[in-house]
Amino acid sequence: MHAPDDALPSTPDDAPAGWSDPDRLRSAAARHLWPHFTPADQSARGDLPVFVRGEGVELWDADGKRWLDGLAALFTVQVGHGRRDLLQKAVDRAGDLAYFPLWGAANAPAVELAERLAHLAPGDLDRVFFGTGGGDSVEAAWKLARSYFAAIGKPRKYKVLSRVGAYHGTSLGALSITGMTGIRHMYEPLVPGAVKVPSTNLYRAPVHADDPVAFGAWAADQVEATILAEGPDTVAAIFLEPVQNAGGSLLPPPGYLQRVREICDRHDVLLVSDETICGFGRTGAMFGCERFDVVPDMITCAKGLTSGYAVLSAVIASERIFEAFRAGGGQFVHGNTWGGHPVAAATALANLDLFDELGLVEHVAATEGAFGDAMRGLGDLELVGDVRGVGHFWTVEVVADRATRRPIVADADGRHVADVIRAAVLDAGLHCRVFGSGSSVIQLCPPLISDQGVFDEIEQVLRAALEKGAAAC
Amino acid sequence: MHAPDDALPSTPDDAPAGWSDPDRLRSAAARHLWPHFTPADQSARGDLPVFVRGEGVELWDADGKRWLDGLAALFTVQVGHGRRDLLQKAVDRAGDLAYFPLWGAANAPAVELAERLAHLAPGDLDRVFFGTGGGDSVEAAWKLARSYFAAIGKPRKYKVLSRVGAYHGTSLGALSITGMTGIRHMYEPLVPGAVKVPSTNLYRAPVHADDPVAFGAWAADQVEATILAEGPDTVAAIFLEPVQNAGGSLLPPPGYLQRVREICDRHDVLLVSDETICGFGRTGAMFGCERFDVVPDMITCAKGLTSGYAVLSAVIASERIFEAFRAGGGQFVHGNTWGGHPVAAATALANLDLFDELGLVEHVAATEGAFGDAMRGLGDLELVGDVRGVGHFWTVEVVADRATRRPIVADADGRHVADVIRAAVLDAGLHCRVFGSGSSVIQLCPPLISDQGVFDEIEQVLRAALEKGAAAC
Repeated sequence: MHAPDDALPSTPDDAPAGWSDPDRLRSAAARHLWPHFTPADQSARGDLPVFVRGEGVELWDADGKRWLDGLAALFTVQVGHGRRDLLQKAVDRAGDLAYFPLWGAANAPAVELAERLAHLAPGDLDRVFFGTGGGDSVEAAWKLARSYFAAIGKPRKYKVLSRVGAYHGTSLGALSITGMTGIRHMYEPLVPGAVKVPSTNLYRAPVHADDPVAFGAWAADQVEATILAEGPDTVAAIFLEPVQNAGGSLLPPPGYLQRVREICDRHDVLLVSDETICGFGRTGAMFGCERFDVVPDMITCAKGLTSGYAVLSAVIASERIFEAFRAGGGQFVHGNTWGGHPVAAATALANLDLFDELGLVEHVAATEGAFGDAMRGLGDLELVGDVRGVGHFWTVEVVADRATRRPIVADADGRHVADVIRAAVLDAGLHCRVFGSGSSVIQLCPPLISDQGVFDEIEQVLRAALEKGAAAC
Repeated sequence: MHAPDDALPSTPDDAPAGWSDPDRLRSAAARHLWPHFTPADQSARGDLPVFVRGEGVELWDADGKRWLDGLAALFTVQVGHGRRDLLQKAVDRAGDLAYFPLWGAANAPAVELAERLAHLAPGDLDRVFFGTGGGDSVEAAWKLARSYFAAIGKPRKYKVLSRVGAYHGTSLGALSITGMTGIRHMYEPLVPGAVKVPSTNLYRAPVHADDPVAFGAWAADQVEATILAEGPDTVAAIFLEPVQNAGGSLLPPPGYLQRVREICDRHDVLLVSDETICGFGRTGAMFGCERFDVVPDMITCAKGLTSGYAVLSAVIASERIFEAFRAGGGQFVHGNTWGGHPVAAATALANLDLFDELGLVEHVAATEGAFGDAMRGLGDLELVGDVRGVGHFWTVEVVADRATRRPIVADADGRHVADVIRAAVLDAGLHCRVFGSGSSVIQLCPPLISDQGVFDEIEQVLRAALEKGAAAC
């Protein structure tokens, strides 16, 4: 218990008091809140934006500044902000019993949601194991893969593959699968057996950069080579996002996912489609694996499942996997307190109702071209090296030199230019990811209700910022 | 996508339809829900209790049966069920912006809650890092300990100690710390460096079973011996619940926690008090570490933080730990999507308001004796080997033989008797943990609003069940 907050800024009589006062908030945050992925000195200064209101694609901070939400908060708020009706429906639905665990028990909203997800998911992905976040579902999926192979008499199959540069979560199991060295290396040693395969970043392809089909075949063959090198009897699963987010909307090369699916079948390796970001309409289909025409053995999903209105995630697993446990008289020895929380499940149901009501997935598919055109329009700017994406999931890659594709963040000069660009984007009130994790990409993932006006505003803000950046070169 | 549910039971016109119909629920659960820690064949039969309503200490299932909640759902619902007002307050408070992440940003409910937790926590535990569950906070605390020692120039300090038999979560990092072999062994290899120290189960103490003080000193000295054997330069932290839940309300032997604190100080090892279950009044103090008079370097907490009404957890860390990052210009490289969710933080604030309004912590302290007397009253039964606990956190250990302390679950005969006891408890409608994870204990952790009537009802149900069990011997 620390000393009383007698050093808090005094509040004039006519100023907003208490927790709506920006100074009060910043002062308390500076002393007590440990924010995520934030430099400690920034945190200690209370130098944090505090968003207090959202409506549709717009946000307002505690100082009254209006922002355009170009990132759906964190790739999450598919239906847009301010839908208090979702929360109210969830309270009305689950209010009689706000909490009971799924340990040997069920609750009505979780059951209804499980059935609904099974209907939405492709193939025989009919069994739903709930959790509390994308990384938590990645943890569950890895454990499920290990446990499944043990159940069918192959207990040595425990390893997982994933791509260099991909993000799959930050708890120690999920972090082992995450391919981003910069957030992983200081926590090693991690879980053994998490092996990396090459990135499918076509723009920075080490081979076949001019031939997407050949590049995809090469990258898939690297997966098979890795399985063979590790020993097929030791490999349980591969985790892939249909479109990889880290690195910036990295589309699967044509044929890549299909070839990986064949390789998985050949070596009895489970294909896990991590749809934490791709799921729930982001790519213009309900799941990214549908958009790219591959049926995985498991889907992991979170974020868009509730559009951010409540904390929930799910593994949607093949009936074949469940059946292995049932037939053997066994069980998946896993669980946690909060997975399938009744209020969260009721929120997800209300969210999916709203998807239907708004025709949201169809809207994304219908407006993908307009979003893409707006972003590709930036291609005339000298700092723009690549524009890529699908659905409402677009990336502008910024380079110091188009010919060599040298990233803008690669040297001291580049960093200066990156700072100029980032500051211009923030000043203009566009919330998006600008050069996250030391990358050279600007990532756009607005709420899925976005339309031409949003695409144009994003284009205008980025154009002005990139022109400022070019002038600072 | 599976076939339409045309095989669902048809519903007579006058029966409850849709998701309030128990048969409809069971049928859909049997096909699509993968519950936690549940045998797959039980799940496939839809043989799951579905709780639909709660009020105070009472629950009702979909068949209309009334239950007494002797476990606060899952050691979670401190203020009791049916407090729709908590949810409503949270919606009213956070409804303007239901979600924004804490990545380089803050939201008002999370900031207010961080300040409040810092006030409640002992010592200089003034920095709050939010997460999504007890295990998630254990993950964060281990990463924080590693990262802290790297920040102060001791990057080789990465290992953690924990007690044999203790539960600290199920994601692969937390599972590495968990000391329950039965839920861990099939997922090995896990994160290296998670080393176990002896249990402090006095009833089954291998030495000094008749001298709690000597036993506590011995157990603490085993911690120091382990640190020395591993190498103090490699050990980052020890995770301990003040009262260990798994194994049944295992109280810290007198002096144990104080001696461990000294050992930690001597070898620069962080003491993490895992208060996922002990926190928020369970032991008759706000935190278990206060009740047992020790100041840790971090508290991990979850469950009672929201009384189950929303998904939230926290690491409450020493200012000294935060300062190491600030002074070095660094940051704790960790985060996730949902930690510090505005609606969840607002729910926690409403929950803590209710704690104050009801005087809940004081109520637990005042009624601890009455609860203990009721449980100790069972000591005249021949199957009762031990009764132990504190606050509203009690355990009855069931033995086949008092003299040898042979557990009731230890052999085939024992299992039969255990089944009789469990069935009698369930038939009587008492929700509690009976012989969980193959243990020989009955665990009681009702909502903290419980009073003499609840204690008496628990005592009566257990007495009748244990008498039936004795008759079946």
